[in-house]
Parts: sequence; C-alpha cells; structure tokens
Amino acid sequence: MKTYLDCIPCFMQQALRAGRMATSDENKLKQILDETAEMVKTISMQATPAETGAKVYQIVSKVTGVEDPYKEIKQQHILETNAIYPELEKIVANADDPLLTAIKIAIAGNVIDLGVNKAFDIVRDVQTILKQDFAIFDYSAFKKQLAKSENILYLGDNVGESVFDILLIKELKKPVKYAVRSTPIINDATREDAIASGIDQVAEIVDSGCKSPGIILSQSAPAFLKIFDTADLVISKGQGNFEGLSGCNRQVFFLLKAKCRIISNHLGVAEGSVILKEHTF
Amino acid sequence: MKTYLDCIPCFMQQALRAGRMATSDENKLKQILDETAEMVKTISMQATPAETGAKVYQIVSKVTGVEDPYKEIKQQHILETNAIYPELEKIVANADDPLLTAIKIAIAGNVIDLGVNKAFDIVRDVQTILKQDFAIFDYSAFKKQLAKSENILYLGDNVGESVFDILLIKELKKPVKYAVRSTPIINDATREDAIASGIDQVAEIVDSGCKSPGIILSQSAPAFLKIFDTADLVISKGQGNFEGLSGCNRQVFFLLKAKCRIISNHLGVAEGSVILKEHTF
Repeated sequence: MKTYLDCIPCFMQQALRAGRMATSDENKLKQILDETAEMVKTISMQATPAETGAKVYQIVSKVTGVEDPYKEIKQQHILETNAIYPELEKIVANADDPLLTAIKIAIAGNVIDLGVNKAFDIVRDVQTILKQDFAIFDYSAFKKQLAKSENILYLGDNVGESVFDILLIKELKKPVKYAVRSTPIINDATREDAIASGIDQVAEIVDSGCKSPGIILSQSAPAFLKIFDTADLVISKGQGNFEGLSGCNRQVFFLLKAKCRIISNHLGVAEGSVILKEHTF
Repeated sequence: MKTYLDCIPCFMQQALRAGRMATSDENKLKQILDETAEMVKTISMQATPAETGAKVYQIVSKVTGVEDPYKEIKQQHILETNAIYPELEKIVANADDPLLTAIKIAIAGNVIDLGVNKAFDIVRDVQTILKQDFAIFDYSAFKKQLAKSENILYLGDNVGESVFDILLIKELKKPVKYAVRSTPIINDATREDAIASGIDQVAEIVDSGCKSPGIILSQSAPAFLKIFDTADLVISKGQGNFEGLSGCNRQVFFLLKAKCRIISNHLGVAEGSVILKEHTF
C-alpha cells in the first residue's frame, strides 16, 4: 500500500506518541518532531507507510537513546493477555466453529486497548468482535487453502495479540512458522517478545529481518524470503503487515481490523471493520 | 496560550484540510505539507497556536493561489444559519433568562457542524447545548460588568456563528463594536462576511488588523488596540481568540467550547465543555 497524504500528519503524531513513551523531556520531544518534519519531506509517496514508520521510530530511538520505548508496556500486555487466555481458550473450545472463533479472537487481539487493569474490558472487547460481522470474509478460500497446506507462515504483529495468536495457531493443526521483527519497533513482537508470549510452544519463531512495523519484502532476510515464497499458506496479521504486503506477488490471507480511515478507504470498507481477506495476484 | 507539542501534528492536519478546500492536486497538497513541515521546525513554542495557524493558511494560499479557500462554505453557512435564525430568536424570547440563552446559542454557533442541509441538526445541536451545564460559569461577573458598561467590544470568530452572535448582541442592549479578521483565514469572519451575516444591523464592525485565526495583540491595528484597551466589556468568542488573549492584561470574558484536548487540558476541563470564563490579570 502506498503512502497517502493523510499519513504524513499521522507520522508526526506517532513520533510524538512514541517519543513520550521514551522521555518526558520537552526539548527532546520537540527535536523528535523537528527531525520527523525534516524526514517526511523526503519520503516517497510510493513507499509503504510501514517503511516511513520505521524511520519515525529510528528518530525516537536516536534522540532519546531508548532502543525499546514500549518494553514495559509490552511486558504488561503479555501479563494481561496471559491472564485471560484460559477464558478465551474455553470460548474457542465451546464454539460451533472453533477455527472461525480463533480467527476472530486473533483479530480482537489486534485492536483492544491493553491498558493497565483492563482485563474485564479485554474480555468484553473480544465478545464484541465475536458478534461482529466481517466486512470482507474469504473464509471458505481460507479453509480450502488450509486443508491442502503442509506448512504455514504466520506473520505476527503486536505483543499481547501474540498470546491470542496461540489460540489460532493451535486450531490450524499444521506446522507453523511465526515471523517476528528483527528489532523493537512500536509494540510489535520481536523473538524475545514472542518467546515471552509462549509462541515457541506452538510454532517455530523465525526472524523476518524487518525493522519496520510491517513486513517489507525488499528489506527482509533471505532465509525469511525463502520461507515466505515456499509456504503453502501465509497468514498476515494487522495493518502494518497489510501495508507492506498488499501488493505482493503471492497469495496471502490478511487478518486485520481496519483501524484508520486511510486503510478503510483503501479496502473500501467502513472504519473499524473486521477483515479476513484473500490477496491474490 | 503557548503552543503545545500536540499542536504541531495538528498544524500538519490543518494544512492538509485547508489545502483540500483549495485544490485536489496531490502534488500541490504534498508541497503544502512539505512547506508546513519546514515551517513548524522554526516556530517558537511561546507563540500562540493562532500565530502559527496564520502561517499554515498563508502557505495554502501561496501554493494554491486561492486566497479564500472557505469562501463557498462560508456563504453556505450564512444561508443555513439565517434559515434557523427566526426559530432561535423565539427560543431566546421565550427563555426564563434570555441573556443566558443567547450566550449559549452564541457558543453553540461555534461548535455545530454546518454541513449542507443540516438545518434540523443545527437546531438539535443548539438544544443540546442549551441543556448542557457550563464547566466554567462566570455569569454573575459577566452580568455585573455588563450592567456598568457603556461600550462593548465583541470579538467575532467563525462565519455562520456570526449570525448567532446577532442574538446575543441584541440581548446585551448596549452599543457594540464587532471585531473581524483583516483577511480571509479559515472560515473566520471578515468585514464582508460580517455584513453578509447581518452584523452591521446591530453593531459597528471594526477591523482587528489580524490575519491570524485569533486576535494577536502584537499584530493588531492601532485603532483596534485603542478600542480593545478602552472598552468597558470585552467578549471573546471561540478558541482562536482565547489562544491569542488568554495572557492579556485586561479583563476579558471568553465564550467558547473546548473543542480539542489541548485547550481542555489548558483550561482544566473535560473536552467538549462549554465555557463562560472571566479572565482577569
């Protein structure tokens, strides 16, 4: 997906938000905004937003000296999602269609606000998504591809959500490789985060080689690209991976909630829609 | 009011929004964003947001060649607010406290979304504000000052809202000067707009000398400053004028709805609060 004009003010907002995770020094925050303003003038509108996102977070790390501003919040998210995991496991086990329910919960993990002591709200948010209809629903194509797949590549997104991914990975009932970011970027899962989430118990964790908040194939590790090219089924979670892969030349199943107006317009759906989309080429 | 860090991404959003009122040329819009990004690096955080706002709209006019991007929408707003004026006049006439009701309607004019054919919604929005409690309510100080005032300066804000201002000006029952912007800036009222709104029938229109979306005393015309200094009562409408005058060295009564999180925090009220605030020094 290309960069839209509306993404540019959003990069500035992200810079400030991420900056505040790392520092409360107003001068450093102003410097982050200034450097981001300088950077956004140079970006190609043909680049994906995730590529520019990486540059935003590089500026934050450089100015603040904090490599992983979201470290504490990621740990907190894992604790919170682990606490409700048994309840979600029961919901899947008792569902008429456990696979579909696990898909919905995995998407819910992408959108819920994992503030401190929000355990009750998380369950409620999951219940809301369970009742929500998909705006794009390529479920039969997904099941068909799953049935004939011997190996699956699952592209992870946020920490916390990663705990919910375990439920879906278990329901796939096939060998799964779970791709993570190479370095900390926003609250996306790195190898360390994926292990802390328990992903290593159900899948083989692979390093994408990407430092962006989304898979960018031109920046991916050769070993990852081989897995990407040869997987029978690729499941991609979240907006960042969608931004990076929406134009790629293989089949991908995107699971996401369209969280901003730009992505929603791009997909032709209402903001907030839940998506299970088969990408073909 | 000083500029907050959160105002900086907001300037970028405003640049894009105003740019789109003037052109649909993506290259020009990108140029507007690039020049705004360059400009925001240079601003003083001690300047008011309204001062930087003026620079944003200067960039839009320069790049697009359109001096008044909001011209058509302003004309539409006057038509719409004129259409419901008689109904609002009845509400004031039948109110237990016509002055307070006129104040509330004048504030409502500052906030309602004046889209096309929204006449019914405008009336509904006014009804909502009429029922809403003020978060800051210096009404008794206002009435006391009004009672002893021989001349009043009323600082106008948006077009459309200007039609609602007529109701309040009539209720003041004193000679009123109504200050306007010197040049078109967003949808703020200029002399031409104020006349089209009918303000000239109830007040003397005076040019503030300001080209910002808010009164900036250091940029105001000498003749206006004399009026400002000598008025017995100054009524200031809207956020832009509040930003410019919240630190000034005379008594001012601010009427506004706190429409953004930054203004709300600055005032110590919830976002969306209705304010009648006496500023003293």
